[in-house]
Amino acid sequence: MRRWNGWGDDKVDFHLSGSAQGMLEELIGSGTPREDVDLAGMLAKIPASRLPDHPLVDREPLTRLRHAVGQSFPDWVQIRYGDLRRFPDGVAFPNDDREVGVLLRYAAETEARVIPYGGGTSVVGHLTTPKGDQPVLMIATTRLNQLQKLDRRNYLATFGAGVNGPDLEAALRAEGFTLGHYPQSFEYSTLGGWVAARSSGQQSLGYGRIEDMFAGGRMYTPTGIFDMNTLPASAAGPDLRHMVLGSEGRMGVISEATVRIRRLPEAERFHAVFFPDWTLAEQAVREVSQAGVPLSMMRLSNAMETQTNLALAGKERLINGLKQYLELRRVNVADQGCMLIIGFTGARAIVKAGRRKALELCRRYRGVHMYRMLGEAWRKNRFRTPYARNELWRLGYGVDTLETCVHWDVVGEAMAGIEAALRNALNVENEAVHVFTHLSHFYSSGCSIYTTYLFRLPANGEAAMARWRRLKEAASEQIVKYRGTISHQHGVGEDHQPYLVHEKTPLGIDLIKQNCAFFDPKGMMNPGKLV
Amino acid sequence: MRRWNGWGDDKVDFHLSGSAQGMLEELIGSGTPREDVDLAGMLAKIPASRLPDHPLVDREPLTRLRHAVGQSFPDWVQIRYGDLRRFPDGVAFPNDDREVGVLLRYAAETEARVIPYGGGTSVVGHLTTPKGDQPVLMIATTRLNQLQKLDRRNYLATFGAGVNGPDLEAALRAEGFTLGHYPQSFEYSTLGGWVAARSSGQQSLGYGRIEDMFAGGRMYTPTGIFDMNTLPASAAGPDLRHMVLGSEGRMGVISEATVRIRRLPEAERFHAVFFPDWTLAEQAVREVSQAGVPLSMMRLSNAMETQTNLALAGKERLINGLKQYLELRRVNVADQGCMLIIGFTGARAIVKAGRRKALELCRRYRGVHMYRMLGEAWRKNRFRTPYARNELWRLGYGVDTLETCVHWDVVGEAMAGIEAALRNALNVENEAVHVFTHLSHFYSSGCSIYTTYLFRLPANGEAAMARWRRLKEAASEQIVKYRGTISHQHGVGEDHQPYLVHEKTPLGIDLIKQNCAFFDPKGMMNPGKLV
Repeated sequence: MRRWNGWGDDKVDFHLSGSAQGMLEELIGSGTPREDVDLAGMLAKIPASRLPDHPLVDREPLTRLRHAVGQSFPDWVQIRYGDLRRFPDGVAFPNDDREVGVLLRYAAETEARVIPYGGGTSVVGHLTTPKGDQPVLMIATTRLNQLQKLDRRNYLATFGAGVNGPDLEAALRAEGFTLGHYPQSFEYSTLGGWVAARSSGQQSLGYGRIEDMFAGGRMYTPTGIFDMNTLPASAAGPDLRHMVLGSEGRMGVISEATVRIRRLPEAERFHAVFFPDWTLAEQAVREVSQAGVPLSMMRLSNAMETQTNLALAGKERLINGLKQYLELRRVNVADQGCMLIIGFTGARAIVKAGRRKALELCRRYRGVHMYRMLGEAWRKNRFRTPYARNELWRLGYGVDTLETCVHWDVVGEAMAGIEAALRNALNVENEAVHVFTHLSHFYSSGCSIYTTYLFRLPANGEAAMARWRRLKEAASEQIVKYRGTISHQHGVGEDHQPYLVHEKTPLGIDLIKQNCAFFDPKGMMNPGKLV
Repeated sequence: MRRWNGWGDDKVDFHLSGSAQGMLEELIGSGTPREDVDLAGMLAKIPASRLPDHPLVDREPLTRLRHAVGQSFPDWVQIRYGDLRRFPDGVAFPNDDREVGVLLRYAAETEARVIPYGGGTSVVGHLTTPKGDQPVLMIATTRLNQLQKLDRRNYLATFGAGVNGPDLEAALRAEGFTLGHYPQSFEYSTLGGWVAARSSGQQSLGYGRIEDMFAGGRMYTPTGIFDMNTLPASAAGPDLRHMVLGSEGRMGVISEATVRIRRLPEAERFHAVFFPDWTLAEQAVREVSQAGVPLSMMRLSNAMETQTNLALAGKERLINGLKQYLELRRVNVADQGCMLIIGFTGARAIVKAGRRKALELCRRYRGVHMYRMLGEAWRKNRFRTPYARNELWRLGYGVDTLETCVHWDVVGEAMAGIEAALRNALNVENEAVHVFTHLSHFYSSGCSIYTTYLFRLPANGEAAMARWRRLKEAASEQIVKYRGTISHQHGVGEDHQPYLVHEKTPLGIDLIKQNCAFFDPKGMMNPGKLV
């Protein structure tokens, strides 16, 4: 069963290796395990629902609790320390499109505010129950999860927007197709959520971002039903799909989406390449990105992430052998060495040509090709990392990630700036922070920077929030300084809202607000998020 | 010098081969050459300007005439028959961004309507002077044509929006870069125009559409200056570039644009492949598109276009040799045979792998590979075809093109429907129409259909317009019937406006209108176009 207060299925645990625990203790000190609030304690805090009875609306406390938060750090603090104060008044699970319309009318009549709920995996506060006297209704797309049409001729598939990653891929795979969208939240996040938050998956280099995959669909809005056709391309005025992509529930509920699919690839390979230092590694991935080599992914870990990942891997004998071999090849992974995972997906001949070209470019920057073992390990574990959060928390450590996308010329500086800001943010409390970074999602003009930070959890929730705010603000200011986007793949939600204007300009913010108001004149849809 | 009443430079002529003329006469009868109105006659029709004096505004009749029309069929009729009645009251050529702002204020003060003018190549009536008492000011971006910044590290180039295709490519080529955007209007059309009309170039399969290239830029609007950052990617709310792409001058004047550029390719090859019939050919290009083979272009001519192109080529001995060879290989180009031009661009190894894969797929559908001669001929002549219009008109023939994009499952039917509608549209007048089609711009879920139609010109402009309207309406109805876009690459302008609602829905049209009003509350920008 899915954890009510953490990540993922409660039968899946992530065990931290001894070497990883040792590393953490050395870097930021031992954590102090503390008691989380239990389910009964949490349920006792839930007030009576302010929503009137409706056959489609579940007002049970447990249901409301299970849909009360996403996976942001503030969400975790509130639910683990037991500080959560605001809960949705009801959760509806429409069984079809029509019921979404019924529910929006019910919400309008009861003057409720509506939060569309997909997989509950938001890490930036998309799901926070807003303050105020109005009741709050979650419309969960959970049951809108069917494959409605598989169009083999046009390589299009139409799904209910609530379908999650595994169900979507399973339905397509059975017919020889794939979408190829693999965000780290893949296990639970939904197609509608990907569209609403402008998601990008781990293999975006080959398959594109969700905006490249989303062909069209349907959004229920207070103003009416908004249908987007699924044409391959058009020059007929502005592309209205882009008003919905990134709308974060502020305009309506996406009920179904049609995506552009592909045949399952003939071949797929993930390789590891090690570089002597960051400068060489960054140049290599930039050159590969700008040369237009057909790849499906790259992930370049900096030295600290490389060391952390190797520690996390356990398997000490194997890793030691690897280290020795790399040292002979003049890569020291205990010091400056950086690991690149690089993936090739597609027709056999194209995979082969792409691999040859990419590895040739890597060699120019003294990249040492380690073949497939570590690449395959990455593939196998690609959705397991979020489970580490449960275990770290148990040991008394908080962990969060943040990400941006910047132009190539500031990648190194921005990464260093963000890391330094995080590393020093808790100096005032005399607390150390463990920080590491990888680059992923590559473009000709830049790439994303994805930084993970770990720190010790204090005794109470208020102190934990204060600690996190210091960290988040320090890092966000660096992102703004380097003119990065406040989010490359997670969205804006509540947490990134203060920084959005730097990217969009005040005029742009007004334009987004006007578009929200077009679909939602009374402001009932997910207020307080995005803009 | 550029022709004032036709396409292109007046030192460049397109000579119609004897075999092509013979073919046309046989198919639709001889044209009746007639006298076009001359420049003096046209200038005499221009009324006094309604705009007050301004140092940046040219009110000379010749300048106003030279900016009075684009290249749509109605534009041609009006300027060749001498029926043009409405002229802009002045044309401004701002020398920098700031002057664009000055001009918008001048327009607001004089209650003028403003039409942004790029290269004057619109084929759908973007430039038509609106009816009414208000004066009309053209803001021509002609002098905003400089390379402002070449960012070698980030593969970005910033240009004034008025730069045309050859100047843009020359500036990039000198530094080893290319944009790769080659619409047929390349010689004259501008970067700003490409963005405003959501253009797509002949090598979109490799380089993408203009929306993939346009990283950001600046638009002067009555509401204020709208700056779009040039980030590689973002998940932070809706992508505001897409409010500007396709805005067709209804929101403001795009003054500068930054584009994503690439290194000049190591290799580029264009090959020809002949198929025995349409059914096989269409299956082949669909399979190649859906297999994700790295290509930069395909252009599949149907049997009638294949025959027309071979007739146009002149060089009868060479073509006869070709025909004989193809017959031995069981392709009859005098009957059902179809020609595909296919292009490969990029790193040598990828070009090689892509070519091998694509040609292998073509062979499965009995495609006969003719190597590079015809492919190179296509490349050499790719921007010459529009010149044929001058010559055809001189011989008494009108010619126009239209295009759409549909899903694969209706490509054949839609093409046949559009062609039949055109072929029969003038039955009431007992006039025949020569119609032929190619597919270009390929996607996994469909492709564009590009149809050319030729017919005889009547004695007066009114009759010519009536003839064209019959043709245009008949074809547009077919496009709507097959749920195609009313334009894949030309835009909406005035001519496609009645059909836009089928694609955008009434709610979508309202949304576009609201966005226009956001930037232009008084409706002074290019009224009557788009929506």
